[in-house]
Amino acid sequence: MRVVDLIMKKRDAFALEAEEIDFLVQGFSRGNIPDYQMSALLMAVVLRGMNPQETALLTEAMIRSGDVMDLSGVPGPLVDKHSTGGVGDKISLILAPVAAACGIRVPMMSGRSLGHTGGTLDKLESIPGYRTDLSPERFRQGLSKIGFAMIGQSETVVPADRRMYALRDVSGTVESVPLITASIMSKKFAEGAEALVFDVKCGSGAFMKNLEQARALAGSLVSTGKGLGRKVVAVITDMDQPLGRAVGNFLEVEESIDCLRGKGPADVVELTCRLAGWMLVLGEKAANPAEGQLMAAKKLSDGSAWDLFLKNVEFQGGQTEFLLHPEKGPHASIKRPLRAASPGTVSRIDAFKVGLASVVLGAGRSRKEDVVLPGVGISIRKSAGEAVSKGDELCLVSGEKEEKVQEALRLLASAWQLADGEPGPRQMIREEITQE
Amino acid sequence: MRVVDLIMKKRDAFALEAEEIDFLVQGFSRGNIPDYQMSALLMAVVLRGMNPQETALLTEAMIRSGDVMDLSGVPGPLVDKHSTGGVGDKISLILAPVAAACGIRVPMMSGRSLGHTGGTLDKLESIPGYRTDLSPERFRQGLSKIGFAMIGQSETVVPADRRMYALRDVSGTVESVPLITASIMSKKFAEGAEALVFDVKCGSGAFMKNLEQARALAGSLVSTGKGLGRKVVAVITDMDQPLGRAVGNFLEVEESIDCLRGKGPADVVELTCRLAGWMLVLGEKAANPAEGQLMAAKKLSDGSAWDLFLKNVEFQGGQTEFLLHPEKGPHASIKRPLRAASPGTVSRIDAFKVGLASVVLGAGRSRKEDVVLPGVGISIRKSAGEAVSKGDELCLVSGEKEEKVQEALRLLASAWQLADGEPGPRQMIREEITQE
Repeated sequence: MRVVDLIMKKRDAFALEAEEIDFLVQGFSRGNIPDYQMSALLMAVVLRGMNPQETALLTEAMIRSGDVMDLSGVPGPLVDKHSTGGVGDKISLILAPVAAACGIRVPMMSGRSLGHTGGTLDKLESIPGYRTDLSPERFRQGLSKIGFAMIGQSETVVPADRRMYALRDVSGTVESVPLITASIMSKKFAEGAEALVFDVKCGSGAFMKNLEQARALAGSLVSTGKGLGRKVVAVITDMDQPLGRAVGNFLEVEESIDCLRGKGPADVVELTCRLAGWMLVLGEKAANPAEGQLMAAKKLSDGSAWDLFLKNVEFQGGQTEFLLHPEKGPHASIKRPLRAASPGTVSRIDAFKVGLASVVLGAGRSRKEDVVLPGVGISIRKSAGEAVSKGDELCLVSGEKEEKVQEALRLLASAWQLADGEPGPRQMIREEITQE
Repeated sequence: MRVVDLIMKKRDAFALEAEEIDFLVQGFSRGNIPDYQMSALLMAVVLRGMNPQETALLTEAMIRSGDVMDLSGVPGPLVDKHSTGGVGDKISLILAPVAAACGIRVPMMSGRSLGHTGGTLDKLESIPGYRTDLSPERFRQGLSKIGFAMIGQSETVVPADRRMYALRDVSGTVESVPLITASIMSKKFAEGAEALVFDVKCGSGAFMKNLEQARALAGSLVSTGKGLGRKVVAVITDMDQPLGRAVGNFLEVEESIDCLRGKGPADVVELTCRLAGWMLVLGEKAANPAEGQLMAAKKLSDGSAWDLFLKNVEFQGGQTEFLLHPEKGPHASIKRPLRAASPGTVSRIDAFKVGLASVVLGAGRSRKEDVVLPGVGISIRKSAGEAVSKGDELCLVSGEKEEKVQEALRLLASAWQLADGEPGPRQMIREEITQE
């Protein structure tokens, strides 16, 4: 088999076969296929696409490129959730204990902040002492004892994806539904999940800016899951505005605590319970998502999810004192309000601008080597639908450096859109795509 | 400017601008842009295309990547011809002296054999002593004194093309009309030509297998020439059968001598005179190609082109004795005939198979480092239209190794197609594309 022939095959819009895809993925992962051939192939994939079968084969080949977590000793059902990334998206912190409280085992492998979006690992690590680099043995223990455990991606899981993503990033080949699908799915299944619920974000704060793009990715995730013989559901959710009222690592931990103690903002609670509902359906603990959603809501109100969260934090080395007394946790030294320049009703808060402002403050990374600050971020005071008088606080900006706070305030000034009338209610769940 | 942004721009089907194309070409040529970005860009160009303006800008940027031959001291008109490559294509050897005899200066930069097609440099160098590595000064002298000179591409002319072609070859990005156009045109104009006649070969023995492909390339060459402010004509010619009766380096030199002495095969003479006719039109020595064609034919019959050829061979170090007495020239030790298995009339000789057989014998190269044998090749005895009895010689195969000769004979056995009726006359000139 010659690499150049396979590149030309894809260039000419033919489908690649199982052994061809495996040859390319393993060859590239082991360094036998040079970057300049892989980037040409990737561009051909971007422009010619891959059918669902090719995408499933690519996912499987990527999984085979490295270690697969052995969770055979952990009693199932093992169901995970993956979000495509958003602003203020702290759902994983609440969802994992909720689903675990309902009897699901959640082997959650999460990422770090990327671009204007936050990362679950950064949020968890803002809890003093919390470690996400568990050994496989500790990971299994956490799953068996508490029902969920949170780790980062290790070097040996799907190495093909790490190499491929680095190349895609510099060769203009990130934007491809089959490549995104295989990248996400391979990591999720290599971590040991049996079934997956995807939260496909859609709107200004998401990578998929419109419903059409979100549908394409959601459809691909679901059909590729089918090709792999795995149960997968994709929920397209609103990311045109930030999720909840807190954006920033420890600020989002505090909001997660509120949710787990039954006092969370409606949008975060609704989305958490809906996604948990689907996890319960896939794990065969609920007959339908509505039933699962009610079961999840109960675990939030009765304190059992909160209890599991405390246990997890303790298990992973975090100091629960900072959860019980969040005021003692990391908080930024400078706090400045953004005030309304005119009266009106908030019609929308642009999630993308809020995300950018949070990165400026240090809650996320502009470059891979940037250090994330736990206490900085944005606390929203006026959400969509709320009436505002001139001079009212729209949000409170927390930062460590005055110049960064001022830069964030300038970005945020145009994020709040005011109107005369009341906006319609926010439709958190846009569409749900299942395998039936 | 970021390379990845330009890759994405082309990927998304936008046209690149002058400074962007120059940045990419010079950056790549100097080694500042890595292969893995260039190959992704090239694949995007293959699949998204380039408009005529982009192709002209790419050609100009490639010319700027290296040295440009200074022919300002040589009295014009400076007109060259370029063929896209075929089997038995010795036209350059005859055409250059014919055009020079008509008052055109022909600065001819030629290539070596590639795939199943022959190369003008290999043919010339089969004349003992002939050198194609002239210094620029000698090249200018030859042009001024004799009217034409023949050289190979030097390392410093269009280095971007050398690097780019090596990458295209291994990344599945050869097949692109704008990339082929820029590669050809940049080298031809860097050598100092003012105007160009292209012989775009079409058929089994050519790179462009059908008329549609040949038209696309011919159209691109002509419109890019216009974009560069240069006079360019493209003639689409038949390469479904070999040109003339000789295929192989010195065998083709012998056939060229026949042509220059007024005894050449009709197809070679017709094509040579037509291409010369167009060169005379571009050089303003003839009002139209038919007039130019007649002028060229006169230079073949009156011996003046032959005289210039002898002068050129002497000037470039070749021993004219081998032209005056070709029987003394390099000839292979083994000669075996291919005989007709059944009677009939030759309807077609497959040029591709003849080309492959000539490479097997050593007239061309399978790999870059192969040495070309001057005396081997195929002498056609029965061309299309000729009647054949069972056992007649269809061709004579000349080789240096018996096993290679036998392999060539097996390939050639299916190259001759016999039919009952007479085939129509060969249409050498398929189409002519001009800038008007």
